[in-house]
Amino acid sequence: MTQAFPADSIGLVAPQTYSFTEPFTLACGRTLEQFDLVVETYGELNADKSNAVLICHALSGDHHAAGYHSSEDRKPGWWNGYIGPGKPIDTDKFFVVSLNNLGGCSGSTGPGSVNPETGKVWGADFPKLRVRDWVHSQARLADRLGISQWAAVVGGSLGGMQAMRWALEYPSRLRHCVVIASAMKLSAQNIAFNETARQAIMADPEFHGGDYFNHHTYPKSGLAVARMIGHITYLSDHVMGEKFGRELRSGSFTQGLDEAVEFQVESYLRYQGDTFSDRFDANTYMLMTRALDYFDLAREYNDDPATAFRRAQCDFYVASFTTDWRFPVERSREIVDALIAAQKNVSYTEIESPYGHDAFLLPNEHYRAAFGRYMAGIITE
Amino acid sequence: MTQAFPADSIGLVAPQTYSFTEPFTLACGRTLEQFDLVVETYGELNADKSNAVLICHALSGDHHAAGYHSSEDRKPGWWNGYIGPGKPIDTDKFFVVSLNNLGGCSGSTGPGSVNPETGKVWGADFPKLRVRDWVHSQARLADRLGISQWAAVVGGSLGGMQAMRWALEYPSRLRHCVVIASAMKLSAQNIAFNETARQAIMADPEFHGGDYFNHHTYPKSGLAVARMIGHITYLSDHVMGEKFGRELRSGSFTQGLDEAVEFQVESYLRYQGDTFSDRFDANTYMLMTRALDYFDLAREYNDDPATAFRRAQCDFYVASFTTDWRFPVERSREIVDALIAAQKNVSYTEIESPYGHDAFLLPNEHYRAAFGRYMAGIITE
Repeated sequence: MTQAFPADSIGLVAPQTYSFTEPFTLACGRTLEQFDLVVETYGELNADKSNAVLICHALSGDHHAAGYHSSEDRKPGWWNGYIGPGKPIDTDKFFVVSLNNLGGCSGSTGPGSVNPETGKVWGADFPKLRVRDWVHSQARLADRLGISQWAAVVGGSLGGMQAMRWALEYPSRLRHCVVIASAMKLSAQNIAFNETARQAIMADPEFHGGDYFNHHTYPKSGLAVARMIGHITYLSDHVMGEKFGRELRSGSFTQGLDEAVEFQVESYLRYQGDTFSDRFDANTYMLMTRALDYFDLAREYNDDPATAFRRAQCDFYVASFTTDWRFPVERSREIVDALIAAQKNVSYTEIESPYGHDAFLLPNEHYRAAFGRYMAGIITE
Repeated sequence: MTQAFPADSIGLVAPQTYSFTEPFTLACGRTLEQFDLVVETYGELNADKSNAVLICHALSGDHHAAGYHSSEDRKPGWWNGYIGPGKPIDTDKFFVVSLNNLGGCSGSTGPGSVNPETGKVWGADFPKLRVRDWVHSQARLADRLGISQWAAVVGGSLGGMQAMRWALEYPSRLRHCVVIASAMKLSAQNIAFNETARQAIMADPEFHGGDYFNHHTYPKSGLAVARMIGHITYLSDHVMGEKFGRELRSGSFTQGLDEAVEFQVESYLRYQGDTFSDRFDANTYMLMTRALDYFDLAREYNDDPATAFRRAQCDFYVASFTTDWRFPVERSREIVDALIAAQKNVSYTEIESPYGHDAFLLPNEHYRAAFGRYMAGIITE
């Protein structure tokens, strides 16, 4: 039977697992004796290995960024709109590497893996991670793939933080840094939302301090509430209004039980919360939101981002979206200002979109054109 | 021992309970055979009873709006900055009536009261309420006090919704309607935040579908998470930044347990959540957020607010705050536009404040002056 994938799709893809057995010391001081990373690649690595692009995922992302895992897949990877033949991250030109980060729950070593020292699931005992730990583990992956320098490191949101950290930690190992809908650090409000999400998980008695594997439980409802909080903040007020208005689900007030779903938006949120908590691991969610909160690009550079960016040797592309209130345009402008102060080459696009933070994942002509132009300008030999 | 209250305070006040024994049919169709309202009054009712002002409280408010309950009180009532001698709601001029709404948890009949028909605590079986039910119960209170017409009905946030509903339900019973930091209906985003808060409560296994009294439990952690969600949305991003920045609690990352409180803002939020869940009833929170979600001023007026407001006979004062993103200035401007279209007298002040939705409770010179001027212009005989 012929598989009919869209012509501009990379088509069928399959993840691969890479095992790393050299001890890996983390920012928190603890050492992992070994770890696995699940990776997908799209396109071909060229002869001088100068066309590799690293994709860094955001909070709830994974390695499956583009293409399809089977002909039955209803949905392609999470960034399929921007990775593929003729797309901004053009797989006819680039060799694209996308991984599930350390600590993740899609196959890479994380809280759901077995701790080889104890023979038990790590659970809450999995070491706390910082963005730099991901960057260092990604560098090991680059070593394994024989990639001494990325043509570009690319990420949106938490992924953009990884891209910026790459530019500071391994200045000679990337030529371009692409930072989309991100920030040099979270605002107090952002931290507050993440903390509330974590509280929702911890409040679930099935969480057992993260030790739910050993208790044969799962904090599904806590994680669902956490996701609902996150989800509201990824959408703009406007798009929620457009999407749901104040539509009543039944056409009239039922005024029934508290459990009754009255508004369409409630039904949508409950669905989002439920499906997310079916597929995602609560400990990973705790760990990833913590890494997001801790990230502070310039913390060890006297809180001066220009000083930090002076270490960088690559060029930068920065993009933001007008209705993103979780990573607002001001945060991206701060990045651009710091880069200019550090005398770096930076291109910046502020993209009109009604879709809030989610816009970085969604189709948008201006975004695609501007992002595509920047990526097309990258020299790969 | 002399009690030393601030000179501009109304001083010592004491709540009173009024019992209503006529059957009271609610918007949902159910009937309360009796109910109590807890009420505080400040100032003196004048001879022709023309100087009475009704205060309508918001989501988590109660009857204790001004003054002190004892000389040991560390804090006065919730709107003490705006109610008292020489203050905008001047107790030298007005007779101020402030009540805990029906369904509340500060002494008025609500989910925590005993259902006289069953002899058991109502719990989740307490009838669902709409804003109009509060208005009708407040009208009964006015009857009891012999007040045929309020000089003004005043409220902020959910209280402003009650004030507007008064103007439509009892056009001849108020001369002025004061609507602060409110809206004619919530946006989908607002409903989504409320729904997530309710989900947090329902996810707490101690909630038992609202029947926690009979289970001798209390959904404290769920209610705390609900309050944290609410609290973030009442503050502006800016003020959270000013108040907490990204200050670490210990001065450095501990990277310890997930339970560790790393940022000041987390510590603050947990405190807010905990103290609120100690004093507030979860069923009341469910019920009040539902009333907030359901409110839609113009729903039965062909969704045309000008048509709705044409019923009103009073004058209006509307105020909003620049950084309030839960009830943004646009929502107040819509009220003003509709009032103008309905050919009503309306004064409007847009107040510069960094404090988000909470600003309506906080000291602010411009707010105090503008609100005070409007109230001073009200003729009381």
